[in-house]
Amino acid sequence: MGQTLTEKILSDHLVEGDLTPGEEIGIEIDQVLMQDTTGTMVWLQFEALDLDEAQTELAAQYCDHQTYQFDFKNTDDHRFLRSAAGTYGAHFSRPGNGICHNVHKENFAAPGKTLLGSDSHTPTPGGLGQLAIGAGGLDIAVAMGGGAYYVEMPEVVNVRLEGELPEWTSAKDVILEMLRRETVKGGVGKVFEYTGPGAESLTVPERTTITNMGTELGATSSIFETDEKTKDYLERQGRGDEYVELTADDDAEYADEIVIDLSDLEPLIACPSMPDKVVPVREVAGKKVEQVLVGSCTNGGYEDILPAAKMFEGREVAKHLEMIIAPGSKQAGEILAREGWTAEMMAAGVNVSEATCGPCIGIGHVPASDSISLRTFNRNFEGRSGIEDDNVYLCSPQVAAAAALEGEIIDPRDLADELDDLESPGIELPDEYDGAKTDLIYAEDAIDDDLIKGPNIGEVPLQDPLGADISGEALLKMEDNITTDHIIPATSDILKFRSNIERLSDFTLSRVDETFAQRAKEAGSGVLVAGENYGQGSSREHAAMCPMYLGIETVLAQSFARIHKANLFNFGIVPLAIDEETYEKLEQGDDVEIVDDVAAGVKSGQEEFTIRVNDDWEATTNLHASERERRILTAGGKLPLTKQQAEGGAAPADD
Amino acid sequence: MGQTLTEKILSDHLVEGDLTPGEEIGIEIDQVLMQDTTGTMVWLQFEALDLDEAQTELAAQYCDHQTYQFDFKNTDDHRFLRSAAGTYGAHFSRPGNGICHNVHKENFAAPGKTLLGSDSHTPTPGGLGQLAIGAGGLDIAVAMGGGAYYVEMPEVVNVRLEGELPEWTSAKDVILEMLRRETVKGGVGKVFEYTGPGAESLTVPERTTITNMGTELGATSSIFETDEKTKDYLERQGRGDEYVELTADDDAEYADEIVIDLSDLEPLIACPSMPDKVVPVREVAGKKVEQVLVGSCTNGGYEDILPAAKMFEGREVAKHLEMIIAPGSKQAGEILAREGWTAEMMAAGVNVSEATCGPCIGIGHVPASDSISLRTFNRNFEGRSGIEDDNVYLCSPQVAAAAALEGEIIDPRDLADELDDLESPGIELPDEYDGAKTDLIYAEDAIDDDLIKGPNIGEVPLQDPLGADISGEALLKMEDNITTDHIIPATSDILKFRSNIERLSDFTLSRVDETFAQRAKEAGSGVLVAGENYGQGSSREHAAMCPMYLGIETVLAQSFARIHKANLFNFGIVPLAIDEETYEKLEQGDDVEIVDDVAAGVKSGQEEFTIRVNDDWEATTNLHASERERRILTAGGKLPLTKQQAEGGAAPADD
Repeated sequence: MGQTLTEKILSDHLVEGDLTPGEEIGIEIDQVLMQDTTGTMVWLQFEALDLDEAQTELAAQYCDHQTYQFDFKNTDDHRFLRSAAGTYGAHFSRPGNGICHNVHKENFAAPGKTLLGSDSHTPTPGGLGQLAIGAGGLDIAVAMGGGAYYVEMPEVVNVRLEGELPEWTSAKDVILEMLRRETVKGGVGKVFEYTGPGAESLTVPERTTITNMGTELGATSSIFETDEKTKDYLERQGRGDEYVELTADDDAEYADEIVIDLSDLEPLIACPSMPDKVVPVREVAGKKVEQVLVGSCTNGGYEDILPAAKMFEGREVAKHLEMIIAPGSKQAGEILAREGWTAEMMAAGVNVSEATCGPCIGIGHVPASDSISLRTFNRNFEGRSGIEDDNVYLCSPQVAAAAALEGEIIDPRDLADELDDLESPGIELPDEYDGAKTDLIYAEDAIDDDLIKGPNIGEVPLQDPLGADISGEALLKMEDNITTDHIIPATSDILKFRSNIERLSDFTLSRVDETFAQRAKEAGSGVLVAGENYGQGSSREHAAMCPMYLGIETVLAQSFARIHKANLFNFGIVPLAIDEETYEKLEQGDDVEIVDDVAAGVKSGQEEFTIRVNDDWEATTNLHASERERRILTAGGKLPLTKQQAEGGAAPADD
Repeated sequence: MGQTLTEKILSDHLVEGDLTPGEEIGIEIDQVLMQDTTGTMVWLQFEALDLDEAQTELAAQYCDHQTYQFDFKNTDDHRFLRSAAGTYGAHFSRPGNGICHNVHKENFAAPGKTLLGSDSHTPTPGGLGQLAIGAGGLDIAVAMGGGAYYVEMPEVVNVRLEGELPEWTSAKDVILEMLRRETVKGGVGKVFEYTGPGAESLTVPERTTITNMGTELGATSSIFETDEKTKDYLERQGRGDEYVELTADDDAEYADEIVIDLSDLEPLIACPSMPDKVVPVREVAGKKVEQVLVGSCTNGGYEDILPAAKMFEGREVAKHLEMIIAPGSKQAGEILAREGWTAEMMAAGVNVSEATCGPCIGIGHVPASDSISLRTFNRNFEGRSGIEDDNVYLCSPQVAAAAALEGEIIDPRDLADELDDLESPGIELPDEYDGAKTDLIYAEDAIDDDLIKGPNIGEVPLQDPLGADISGEALLKMEDNITTDHIIPATSDILKFRSNIERLSDFTLSRVDETFAQRAKEAGSGVLVAGENYGQGSSREHAAMCPMYLGIETVLAQSFARIHKANLFNFGIVPLAIDEETYEKLEQGDDVEIVDDVAAGVKSGQEEFTIRVNDDWEATTNLHASERERRILTAGGKLPLTKQQAEGGAAPADD
């Protein structure tokens, strides 16, 4: 029987397990990437492993999230990251050089390699045939230590694209259509493999828009086969020699198939405040817009901004709104500037930002109260823009530019009717991606050989081994789809404490309940209750580390998002699945006790644990955990386990 | 007897008093400008005056300080300002269009006109022969209401420039030399009038660097005569018809004369943390630099950035530092981009920011702890960069670019020796300032006709009329040279409350003593004690409004900065001068009582007031106040007085 592309790459990297969906496999990691908000913790953990050098083929540290510094903390973090990259042999991308996914795609992404990244949009280079997975920082540290990465073997789903994109639609509409059909939970435990003539018709930048935002489906990863378009892209990046032809076998068996006829697509838009609330643009046309942003790791490439620039050329954005272009990389910004597009856009009334994550995580350009912001980004979770009652819509650069010109949401096809010289700008790659590499400090050119720690760089908190008893108050009962943005917000006032868990934990779940952190501290221990898909969104391990620091020992949820569940294991918090009835019955304030001996049960492979609530009623909960995950929980988390193993003589990071 | 240029313009605009230095004069205001942090309060006060329209020839509202938004407050403020400008007939410059002084210079500054601005660097267009003065927001509101502006007739000092600037020096070195000689107090009560062949040799952008930073001397204003260079500049801006020839009479009598031979100058630098700590660059050469910024209202023009761009062309900035260019206006940014310089700079490793005040007031790009930042800005007050123990040096773009290339402070002449192809880049104007005007909404094209107030736009606080008794605890004893940045910091976490005095007042003097605001609130009233030059720095009236809101009724200081003293009157706080002996004797915590009947004394013209301290010892204090200022104090401030007059049938704003 033939293999899917995903299976082929996994086979090549398999060190443990077999490729049965749902079973845990261990794979070898070729490349790792870190961004700045998660990177400091990765390096502090790597330091705790006492190794001399990153063991992966390639490690790259980017500075992209914390680039609008408000006090010394962000800048100190960047200096620490540069020193860590230099000390341990990683490439370093300076602040302002761009978003990790964009810069990695341009410089390092390689077909057929595995990439593990401490950011949830790590799957971006799937558009070049790389198998890229987002993970918690600790997993990255361990992979850098030469250890395997463990993950449930995903189901591989074939997304067959037929036809070609019509005028005024773009790759963004493909992934928005996927979200419309499959929802933010539709990709959990899956890799989406895009095939068919429609996939072949897309350029690499279009493919990476799709693989990037596959994260919003909850997918483990998304990937395209490689072909002439992949080769062409790598050649334009000056890396043609890294091309490898990679396809699924003709008789590959997929777990499922989704068929999208690109020629049926129309301009789509995701309404507030979830990326799957997708409707045709025409359904919400006419709404006044006060802010439009084109950029981010989803649509911040040269190829994404160029269509908007062409639409703006010789025109003006509406007087009442602010139009911002935030290139995803300095390379994109430099080429746009060199070709004259930056000046054209400025003349049209556009503000051109530095190449950072910026407004996508609520840093700068926060919308006005009670106003609509249109963004080409990948997430519109409530509050992520920096204001609680925000109204953020997600769309393609073409739809965004049309709104900026019209001052309200409009299907660009209707704008084309109004402005009869307005043509649908097609996708276009520069002849050569000839931006300078000045802001990359390659490992071999490192300028630091020792760690530089400013006063805000804290310690890595460690948890005791799992005990027999877990009990405590249900300190918070939450709804479905709680995101890691709810658990640890990424706004500027909070982001700066990412390297300082003691201080950061004060903000835990503050977006759900401002009193939570204080109550948890007073209680000293406790239990969290949640609905479906708990912990969706970004990969930030702080969303597990901070509850752990506050004494949370178990989370009872109807289901867990993949990366966050791994993070809970990694920090010694027991993730127990409950059924809907139990969820409905549990109340905030209830006393919850696990009746069984938890340590013994976890160790012995026990799956069902009984909880007793208010000494009144009982329910069964389920621990879905591999043997490896049980070992981690038992030790109190992955770092204590890895240290134990190292001290016991086992391979330090080969857990 | 002939007149100085300053006297000529003042004569043309005089509505009260005569031109005797030290005596109060009232002058008619032709133009006003507001920036965003002070503008909201100006418009709220203008609204309180119940007028239909701004009465000045021209009013312009800029958005420059609060353009890195962190929550809805900044954006809401901008929306309010746009609506106020539209409602009352002012021009509006959108966020991202640039810093008020740069945009005003490009678009509206006119020789021979008077300009009043709610920003301390308002004197910038003095470089075009405009008499421009910074003032508190309330003065702007009154001027917009058609009222005169009252100021002590300054002494006019002739700064005679001989010779020509040598290679590698620039206009920045002229003003740094002035600061070295005259100190930050040397300009108090003075207008500096620049004349002589050296002045003629300078272009308008060079002249405005000097007039802009004249503020750091404490000067009321700085001004250049107009000539062919002025005409040429206005023509390149498309405003040649606004040129007026303006010179001092040959037999003008100046209060003093300072002679600077430009050909004697060498590259200079102001050391932390005061703009007058000026030394030759060579004296501090070799110090490692971690951040370099070129921009701001002092050196953010096309003509300032171009020399740096030429030095960067084909080179790379040092790997360990961050180099940021922040154009002062979008016009500058657009022309630089159009000519290819933006791409060149990016290739050299430069980050190019949006056109805002940004890092100059601690918003974005805050230095790392224990590191040196080199900036072409005008202020390096401690903490202004956003970090308490900062090390900010001020210099020219050429010195900044040299440091960025070398990685440490270096005299560019020595760098030229090292890199033998490096030529001193001369000043160069674009053939035509042809940037688009898209981001200016002219009064006649206004898109709002009613005020839009978001939830953070507060009320204007009003004070009761002055009473007979003032007594209270000396809540804080401060040193010399306390700046308005000390009184109300301008960092991002605080700036966003500029339209909300109740909330903002919590941060009053927090940089001197974090407990102050709380202690003042608990006390309900109190007295401040300070040394020389209290309230230097920015014009922000919040530095008077917040202490007033907290119950401060008098400030006892050895001397007061001009704008701040006017603000104290405007908000009903009695500024009393004390001698050094009294200053030394007063202790924080002392009980201070004014023995005299304060209301009666202020009203009757009494100059000496006796304070009794701890019921133990007495000292004499002095109130230096004009009859007009006494009327303001008596009413409890300028707004209550203006309202009283309006209700009493007098011209509403003709106080």
